[in-house]
Amino acid sequence: MTSEDGKKIPLIAVVMGSDSDLPTLEPAIKVLESFNLLLEIKILSAHRTPKEMILFAEEAKSKGFKVIIAGAGGAAHLPGMIASLTPLPVIGVPVRTKALSGIDSMFSILQMPKGIPVATVAIEGGLNAGLLAAQIIGVSDTTIQQKISSYRKNLHDGVISKDKLLHEIGANEYLKKLLNKK
Amino acid sequence: MTSEDGKKIPLIAVVMGSDSDLPTLEPAIKVLESFNLLLEIKILSAHRTPKEMILFAEEAKSKGFKVIIAGAGGAAHLPGMIASLTPLPVIGVPVRTKALSGIDSMFSILQMPKGIPVATVAIEGGLNAGLLAAQIIGVSDTTIQQKISSYRKNLHDGVISKDKLLHEIGANEYLKKLLNKK
Amino acid sequence: MTSEDGKKIPLIAVVMGSDSDLPTLEPAIKVLESFNLLLEIKILSAHRTPKEMILFAEEAKSKGFKVIIAGAGGAAHLPGMIASLTPLPVIGVPVRTKALSGIDSMFSILQMPKGIPVATVAIEGGLNAGLLAAQIIGVSDTTIQQKISSYRKNLHDGVISKDKLLHEIGANEYLKKLLNKK
Amino acid sequence: MTSEDGKKIPLIAVVMGSDSDLPTLEPAIKVLESFNLLLEIKILSAHRTPKEMILFAEEAKSKGFKVIIAGAGGAAHLPGMIASLTPLPVIGVPVRTKALSGIDSMFSILQMPKGIPVATVAIEGGLNAGLLAAQIIGVSDTTIQQKISSYRKNLHDGVISKDKLLHEIGANEYLKKLLNKK
Amino acid sequence: MTSEDGKKIPLIAVVMGSDSDLPTLEPAIKVLESFNLLLEIKILSAHRTPKEMILFAEEAKSKGFKVIIAGAGGAAHLPGMIASLTPLPVIGVPVRTKALSGIDSMFSILQMPKGIPVATVAIEGGLNAGLLAAQIIGVSDTTIQQKISSYRKNLHDGVISKDKLLHEIGANEYLKKLLNKK
Amino acid sequence: MTSEDGKKIPLIAVVMGSDSDLPTLEPAIKVLESFNLLLEIKILSAHRTPKEMILFAEEAKSKGFKVIIAGAGGAAHLPGMIASLTPLPVIGVPVRTKALSGIDSMFSILQMPKGIPVATVAIEGGLNAGLLAAQIIGVSDTTIQQKISSYRKNLHDGVISKDKLLHEIGANEYLKKLLNKK
Amino acid sequence: MTSEDGKKIPLIAVVMGSDSDLPTLEPAIKVLESFNLLLEIKILSAHRTPKEMILFAEEAKSKGFKVIIAGAGGAAHLPGMIASLTPLPVIGVPVRTKALSGIDSMFSILQMPKGIPVATVAIEGGLNAGLLAAQIIGVSDTTIQQKISSYRKNLHDGVISKDKLLHEIGANEYLKKLLNKK
Amino acid sequence: MTSEDGKKIPLIAVVMGSDSDLPTLEPAIKVLESFNLLLEIKILSAHRTPKEMILFAEEAKSKGFKVIIAGAGGAAHLPGMIASLTPLPVIGVPVRTKALSGIDSMFSILQMPKGIPVATVAIEGGLNAGLLAAQIIGVSDTTIQQKISSYRKNLHDGVISKDKLLHEIGANEYLKKLLNKK
Repeated sequence: MTSEDGKKIPLIAVVMGSDSDLPTLEPAIKVLESFNLLLEIKILSAHRTPKEMILFAEEAKSKGFKVIIAGAGGAAHLPGMIASLTPLPVIGVPVRTKALSGIDSMFSILQMPKGIPVATVAIEGGLNAGLLAAQIIGVSDTTIQQKISSYRKNLHDGVISKDKLLHEIGANEYLKKLLNKK
Repeated sequence: MTSEDGKKIPLIAVVMGSDSDLPTLEPAIKVLESFNLLLEIKILSAHRTPKEMILFAEEAKSKGFKVIIAGAGGAAHLPGMIASLTPLPVIGVPVRTKALSGIDSMFSILQMPKGIPVATVAIEGGLNAGLLAAQIIGVSDTTIQQKISSYRKNLHDGVISKDKLLHEIGANEYLKKLLNKK
Repeated sequence: MTSEDGKKIPLIAVVMGSDSDLPTLEPAIKVLESFNLLLEIKILSAHRTPKEMILFAEEAKSKGFKVIIAGAGGAAHLPGMIASLTPLPVIGVPVRTKALSGIDSMFSILQMPKGIPVATVAIEGGLNAGLLAAQIIGVSDTTIQQKISSYRKNLHDGVISKDKLLHEIGANEYLKKLLNKK
Repeated sequence: MTSEDGKKIPLIAVVMGSDSDLPTLEPAIKVLESFNLLLEIKILSAHRTPKEMILFAEEAKSKGFKVIIAGAGGAAHLPGMIASLTPLPVIGVPVRTKALSGIDSMFSILQMPKGIPVATVAIEGGLNAGLLAAQIIGVSDTTIQQKISSYRKNLHDGVISKDKLLHEIGANEYLKKLLNKK
Repeated sequence: MTSEDGKKIPLIAVVMGSDSDLPTLEPAIKVLESFNLLLEIKILSAHRTPKEMILFAEEAKSKGFKVIIAGAGGAAHLPGMIASLTPLPVIGVPVRTKALSGIDSMFSILQMPKGIPVATVAIEGGLNAGLLAAQIIGVSDTTIQQKISSYRKNLHDGVISKDKLLHEIGANEYLKKLLNKK
Repeated sequence: MTSEDGKKIPLIAVVMGSDSDLPTLEPAIKVLESFNLLLEIKILSAHRTPKEMILFAEEAKSKGFKVIIAGAGGAAHLPGMIASLTPLPVIGVPVRTKALSGIDSMFSILQMPKGIPVATVAIEGGLNAGLLAAQIIGVSDTTIQQKISSYRKNLHDGVISKDKLLHEIGANEYLKKLLNKK
Repeated sequence: MTSEDGKKIPLIAVVMGSDSDLPTLEPAIKVLESFNLLLEIKILSAHRTPKEMILFAEEAKSKGFKVIIAGAGGAAHLPGMIASLTPLPVIGVPVRTKALSGIDSMFSILQMPKGIPVATVAIEGGLNAGLLAAQIIGVSDTTIQQKISSYRKNLHDGVISKDKLLHEIGANEYLKKLLNKK
Repeated sequence: MTSEDGKKIPLIAVVMGSDSDLPTLEPAIKVLESFNLLLEIKILSAHRTPKEMILFAEEAKSKGFKVIIAGAGGAAHLPGMIASLTPLPVIGVPVRTKALSGIDSMFSILQMPKGIPVATVAIEGGLNAGLLAAQIIGVSDTTIQQKISSYRKNLHDGVISKDKLLHEIGANEYLKKLLNKK
């Protein structure tokens, strides 16, 4: 997709409540870039920069975004607040927290009231947020849908090779290799 | 969308692990039908009809579905298993359970491994699953996106009128009306 | 406190995410009115009326409010979002939810990030939210502080009379009276 | 505020159940001192020094305190017991515990009975307890209220600069910097 | 045991934070009375009558009590505060709560800090609190210890007769009888 | 299997800690009887009849039992204690409890130490305990294994007919039927 | 047991969702091999290799397997999906997860719907899964049942010697030895 | 207390399910020895040495024990099983577990059925178990009761000196000292 002045515009925004959430969201960024999808990546705090967050969410659709990925931890209001201000699908990523392992983030993101959904993925599920965004784009973009299928094929083949190796060298040897890798 | 023989084909499948999940999914069905979206509604058990479930998931894309909503309770494998067999986005609805209030359903649906996301909504979040499916269709269908925006406007206006009524009659009267309605 | 045009202006706002939260907040309203504190009571949804919520929070201080009580359930963003938009102290009331008994509301309200506190009270703790608001007003208003002390004295005396009755009639009789009252 | 003999008297007491809670409360102390608020800091155990705790709470108001911050872990009775013995607002800080990550502290502080509120902040929320105390003082002290607003502005600007840096150097470089800082 | 003026004095105090806890503690009262143990039964709120609670706990030993049973719900401070003010063994009974089923009460009573134990029984475990108090008295009173043994024998014989009946009439009939009893 | 005196002897024992657990275990009894498996059904309390429980477990193997199903609630020691006294496989059924919905039963049965497994099924999973016992017998008894397969076929066909009915009458009609059945 | 071509065939399959689950399942492998039971060990992902998983489960019985051990973490669908596709008894091992310590795995494996049991062991209970599989084989194989009894005897004797050592050297010395071993 | 042959006999037994529980119980042993109370310390597994456990519990009273402390982890049956076999008071110590932090141990020990109490202390509450045992002995032994009071006085004085030091050197210096000690 291109904007009026001919520049390519990003279809997906990846936003996070704090820069400490970046390691959680990085796998989303990596996988979407590997699919050649242009991203906008932003730090946007529902609580510390509420007005910027509101503006971003209100303009998201008109700027051309198709999907928004939002990660946050604790009383994680960012995904839900963005969802309340845009008709675009919003994917929420609960970030693990020190005291509560992300249980608090999970409930704050998942338990949205009737009318305003957030598509929630697993605690620390950055990678899956990226893949889900691609699947959503893939609904009307067969190139991306094929990339999802290839990605799945790679996952599948990885398991098959590991299973083959396990059969060849046995559980004992495999375990040694596994522990050495750590 | 129409199939080769000119019949309209459904874009969204709403599947459930047991007919006892139907009350949870009914608000999804209602809201999607109100948006004039054609649905296929199925009872498909990951554990009791595994082969039918597999066949359904494998054929879902070629049959023209764009999004799948899957609701299940307990060790709720249906959304995740379907997700593993199709590149389409899958929305999971954790159904409340008697012993554990749906906490078990929630973890079984939400905590998918890397590579295979399920877009999870709140426990008993049937309505939001429907709206999220519409939002995903809306990514490439402005008519549907506008319906989402109208739906939101109605929600908004409902709150505004309630707030107005509260100001007019006061908390005491309002509470009486509320309790009478039950 | 009076506004420029001589009208008394409310010091405390009691806001709720949905009119279904009114029964939870009603004890706050009752106790504050019994202290002759003027209130503004509003239904304001972080997700369904986000712009009205933002406007309310941004103007709260200049309108003369001193404390805000906000109750919400589920992914309860209302207290935290208001707190992020005003320097006034915000008291959050986690409303009980059907699936999760208010555990979700509690985490969404309590686990605020560094910099933006919400003074959280017990699940369904509407009465205590009202009393806490009065205690905060009481910091600079000895009349209110004395009302808190009287309220406490009544609580104390109630326990003392019940204890006295228990001694007089014995546990057996007391229990019968108790069960009859239900 | 000054006492009869002309000495400045502290408006805020910061008390803790054990000296091992000091790291949790230190951010409260730091931020309140940065606002030029005079503090009294005490170790006071509800269980090991109950009489001193009672005396402290009973005299707190007459000594001129306006707000009390109390941190404790496990069966954390300190905040609630102080609250039961003074009409001042009490802020409770649940300290993280080894076995239960502070879940026990949280319930013991938050779930106060009707009549005696404790303004609870997040697990390990020392900083927010300090800010909330300042906000409460700020209700009748515009200097402090302005300090809260400045503090917020700094938080806001910090996020904005981080977001700017992220745009300039990209997620990849930013992540490297982040991981180096640890 | 008799006091100086020849009156029998109670060995066990049964105290509760609110008269609504009486149904939970009634089985303790019943079983201890059936063992001919004299009781003092009191409503004593750690939060609403803190001074009476403190006085009671401080005088408990000199008044001749040997064991104290304390039941409370929510942020249940009563058992722990009494324990901190007397060297007598204190038995804590977590009372079920509406929002959290007594999980809050359990943590507030069980998780006492090093130095001040509370002997905690199951949520709603009033009967077992009574039996435990009797067992503690029984350490130096063989009459009471024998009553415990007889009580156990009755429990045992009750199970044996039920098992016998089950064998005689079969599971089907037994279940019908069981459901009729309800 | 027949004993020396020619009488058929039961292969499966179904034991429960209290007769109140019978409704949970009844589906196990029903399904095993429908497979023509002879059962012994007993009430045996680990805590109230410990010696009978020990004797039963120690003799279980020599009496000819092949599998034991044990259901219990709360601090549910029955399945684990039986497992520690016999080399036979023991299936544990966590019974739902009033305060904790069976979470306590589940942990007490599932979290057995290294060396002594209990095959745990879902909370209130009486039916599945019966089916699992049959599957274990089926390992060396093809008649029983075929009955399991038929049972599965019925489950499967039940889902298929419900799905068919749903297609024929639509979700709306189906839901009405469903709600009428209750 | 031997196949048609005279080769010994494995009675037990040990499958896992990812090679990272191998350390959890290794104790099962070790103990079963020490009982001279032939195993097939496989990596099989319900989500990444669904078709291989389905094929494996459907053929398991005809290949001669008697019991299947399946370990998985997170939304752990592997044990339940295999159970739905074979009449053989399936033992599920919940693997500990980073965010949720295996609580998610436990619920996903344990809370199977009516009709399809999974014999669940403790979180990280690989060893007990192995022993349970041997106990199930032992139902019709007295050699294996005797091995279970010997294994139990060793466990028993280990505790007895530790208890003896504790008596001889005292708690203090014992603790030192224990801490040195770490 | 002395046995017939003139030897002193222990009043308190400290038993544990595994030698790995010794670090949890050591503080109980230490504090009871500091009170000059003679102990018997045993490793006794409910699951691995069930018969020795049963024998110990049945003989405990006649051997002269007055109180039993039992620590165990996971499906911690030891305290409850001992309690079911003796009329003596039994104190249960939930040992922290790797996967579940001792939540499993806590429920297995605390949630005993009606009729058989276990006096439960905090997770890892070995010290408090020792003190509670001494308090129970103290009910009929004023020397021990005085030792409890002295112990409490020391606890109290320790807090007072720490509070004094904090006042003298300030929070900043105190925190440095604290962090250095680690």
